[in-house]
Amino acid sequence: MAEPIRVTVWNEFRHEREKDAVRKVYPQGIHVAVAEALHEAGCETRTATLDEPEHGLPESVLDHTDVLTWWGHKAHHEVSDEVVERVHRRVLDGMGLVVLHSGHNSKVFRALMGTTCSLRWREAGERERVWVVERTHPIAEGVDPYFELAHEEMYGERFDIPAPDALVFLGWFQGGDVFRSGCCFFRGQGRVFYFQPGHETYPTYHDPVVRRILANAVRWAHTGVRIEQHGCPKCDPLEPLPEVEGERVG
Amino acid sequence: MAEPIRVTVWNEFRHEREKDAVRKVYPQGIHVAVAEALHEAGCETRTATLDEPEHGLPESVLDHTDVLTWWGHKAHHEVSDEVVERVHRRVLDGMGLVVLHSGHNSKVFRALMGTTCSLRWREAGERERVWVVERTHPIAEGVDPYFELAHEEMYGERFDIPAPDALVFLGWFQGGDVFRSGCCFFRGQGRVFYFQPGHETYPTYHDPVVRRILANAVRWAHTGVRIEQHGCPKCDPLEPLPEVEGERVG
Amino acid sequence: MAEPIRVTVWNEFRHEREKDAVRKVYPQGIHVAVAEALHEAGCETRTATLDEPEHGLPESVLDHTDVLTWWGHKAHHEVSDEVVERVHRRVLDGMGLVVLHSGHNSKVFRALMGTTCSLRWREAGERERVWVVERTHPIAEGVDPYFELAHEEMYGERFDIPAPDALVFLGWFQGGDVFRSGCCFFRGQGRVFYFQPGHETYPTYHDPVVRRILANAVRWAHTGVRIEQHGCPKCDPLEPLPEVEGERVG
Amino acid sequence: MAEPIRVTVWNEFRHEREKDAVRKVYPQGIHVAVAEALHEAGCETRTATLDEPEHGLPESVLDHTDVLTWWGHKAHHEVSDEVVERVHRRVLDGMGLVVLHSGHNSKVFRALMGTTCSLRWREAGERERVWVVERTHPIAEGVDPYFELAHEEMYGERFDIPAPDALVFLGWFQGGDVFRSGCCFFRGQGRVFYFQPGHETYPTYHDPVVRRILANAVRWAHTGVRIEQHGCPKCDPLEPLPEVEGERVG
Repeated sequence: MAEPIRVTVWNEFRHEREKDAVRKVYPQGIHVAVAEALHEAGCETRTATLDEPEHGLPESVLDHTDVLTWWGHKAHHEVSDEVVERVHRRVLDGMGLVVLHSGHNSKVFRALMGTTCSLRWREAGERERVWVVERTHPIAEGVDPYFELAHEEMYGERFDIPAPDALVFLGWFQGGDVFRSGCCFFRGQGRVFYFQPGHETYPTYHDPVVRRILANAVRWAHTGVRIEQHGCPKCDPLEPLPEVEGERVG
Repeated sequence: MAEPIRVTVWNEFRHEREKDAVRKVYPQGIHVAVAEALHEAGCETRTATLDEPEHGLPESVLDHTDVLTWWGHKAHHEVSDEVVERVHRRVLDGMGLVVLHSGHNSKVFRALMGTTCSLRWREAGERERVWVVERTHPIAEGVDPYFELAHEEMYGERFDIPAPDALVFLGWFQGGDVFRSGCCFFRGQGRVFYFQPGHETYPTYHDPVVRRILANAVRWAHTGVRIEQHGCPKCDPLEPLPEVEGERVG
Repeated sequence: MAEPIRVTVWNEFRHEREKDAVRKVYPQGIHVAVAEALHEAGCETRTATLDEPEHGLPESVLDHTDVLTWWGHKAHHEVSDEVVERVHRRVLDGMGLVVLHSGHNSKVFRALMGTTCSLRWREAGERERVWVVERTHPIAEGVDPYFELAHEEMYGERFDIPAPDALVFLGWFQGGDVFRSGCCFFRGQGRVFYFQPGHETYPTYHDPVVRRILANAVRWAHTGVRIEQHGCPKCDPLEPLPEVEGERVG
Repeated sequence: MAEPIRVTVWNEFRHEREKDAVRKVYPQGIHVAVAEALHEAGCETRTATLDEPEHGLPESVLDHTDVLTWWGHKAHHEVSDEVVERVHRRVLDGMGLVVLHSGHNSKVFRALMGTTCSLRWREAGERERVWVVERTHPIAEGVDPYFELAHEEMYGERFDIPAPDALVFLGWFQGGDVFRSGCCFFRGQGRVFYFQPGHETYPTYHDPVVRRILANAVRWAHTGVRIEQHGCPKCDPLEPLPEVEGERVG
């Protein structure tokens, strides 16, 4: 039997402690809801939050993390550049990363994308309908041609990301907007999935379809590989070369 | 008649001042050779170098720059983060960027790509043959199915970049390596082209085919648009929404 | 001054002759409305329709066609395989092709895509809002972040196409669906643009934004190149090879 | 334990019966060598060849085929259009397809690509070195940064395919050419992998690295899904629509 995938579920964990309306939906925090969904799917999970030392993400934790999930919103700027760089590097070395909802604006997602990752938004409790664009993509496994969320925050185009390597979901919003709601990116040796649903005041992470997608995303993002890249190696020719004519500058 | 494209040609300009072998090939600096090629092609050019104040790239210069070309090598780390961020932002707003040769390792290219941009290399004066993969891409206009460079530095795969939005050239090296030598990327509202040839000890930028490609690349990278993106705008619904049921948390 | 782009506007031209409701919107046929839009944009236009000999597309017409636009719906199967193959080959040699609305199901588009090009649909006079995904793509030039069509036929995902080389527009439909409404494809030496709006009972091709997009699409699709590919050429080595050890089977 | 993947290994099987030099390398045919490699990797394999009834590919065989591999060369035109269409449709419904070497010119690969799939070639027993571009792609699992084949037929760019959805391998040839040697395509619900090595006079399919790649490719191409698409379904609105104003033409 395959080893379980080791997932670290990261959460900013501020809204839940500060606002009743959020606590009511996620009494123990969004991270606990996400971790439960992944645990049920057979993953080995742990959680980490902003206010822990090193935001709960010391090297020793990342050493045992196959896939990291990321939810943050109001305190992106409080995440230390050192930890951002650490996570970024790990992804490039082969760790999976699943970026959730307002994590679009996190330092680490923006560093991986190289763009602003800006979007248009509106909080109006409107209905979202998420359409599957690639039905046989592993992240859409077991998902119907579309699913609905009774209430979500609207995220609308233009979403300032590089063209994704695969576009898995498109979101339709009642108020008249569309969004690339599920996007895969290959970066370095790692895999990144961005998934739009998950506003803190709605029970999105309790939804069974969303939970299935979270588990699928983690499985997809898990490469099982770690290849460290240290600078640019100089290398010898593999084929014989003619003598060089004294123009080398060393 | 169309306005000429305004190009700023940036160069680190250190090798040329420090090494005879380089000065012999580019007596006035690589930037002057590149600027000449672009001037001949009808561009309005200016140059900027590392050791000028703000590396020659104050806001006022970028205000009048449609496309920036970038050659750097040994002093990437001396480019200030402030200027890197400025150039990065300008690209996302619509400025074109043509990254040359060892510029693969520049801060700004790495920030735009989100990856290490590492590669394998060897300086052995070997022959490179550059193949055109997309014959009708504007950057390949007027280029034969392949062209040769008698001597180039070898850059070999794996080149740690995101999959390019278009792969225009592939490089074959005598010593046994291959490389994605011409890659297009769309980032934000801007366009980025990476072109591998151009080692400082070889007369690559005097080669007429290379000069044609430089001019093509600048034309391609020129969007003529500048769209500033300031954060994520909140926006009203475009369609009528039902009353929200008191669950807003503001 | 540049030569005008020579566009042949192809139309099935059946609905307009058979149904009053269509004739009222396009009295001379959809092709005439499309051709007018392109003529106003400076193109040199001619039209061709299904019931002309060779569907109006003999080799001599294609010899003088830089870009072909295609509108068909109920009689796709009446287009002869010979003409389909002729158009297909021309596109691969460098001719541009702009496929409109129900042309998604045309033989030539399906041959170019290699997929079924199927989609979901509904004719309910609903509102469509078309969002621009790539604001600096040439086909979106001069288009606002979105535009509206008061009534369009709904085309919904999943649209069975290969992932487009560029996704320019996304469509939002009032009835709850989304669609990849503007898609670019590079095929052979040619360029193909698919544009979803344009149901025969609505005045879509009289809309100024749509007309602008048609003109932009023609300009984008025009490569100015024709490279005929006849089979797979055998070719000599470009580098010296060692003697082969008698294992050739020729 | 997971069900074994059911692979049908298709081979033209003419060269092996007609030429001693080929029979010496593949005494029982290329298909038997390929099937052995896949059987060793745990697949359930069967073979099919051109001269069997329906080329060995009746519906009943495809009903029990998860992934089909395809080697053909001199008799592509003898494959009946009916069988080509059958295989094409199966791929779009979710069957995997691994196209080998000269299969680039097969009717089914060309139908899936929509392009000529032409390339340049030379049979000179030269060395090929295959480079891995995407190290963590499942098809490259267990493969070193490059591997060598002492003798291969040269296949060179430009390879007239649509830009692949993932570029896994690049080939370097001793005679001076490069090639996109391992290319992934998503088409419909199916997955297609093209792999360039495998000339009939060389023992390529006995090479352990190549055999590993064949097995990896089959695993990657296996979607486990079959979604039949029959035409374009008409569908009801998912959201309430305003009354339509009598302009329907039904």
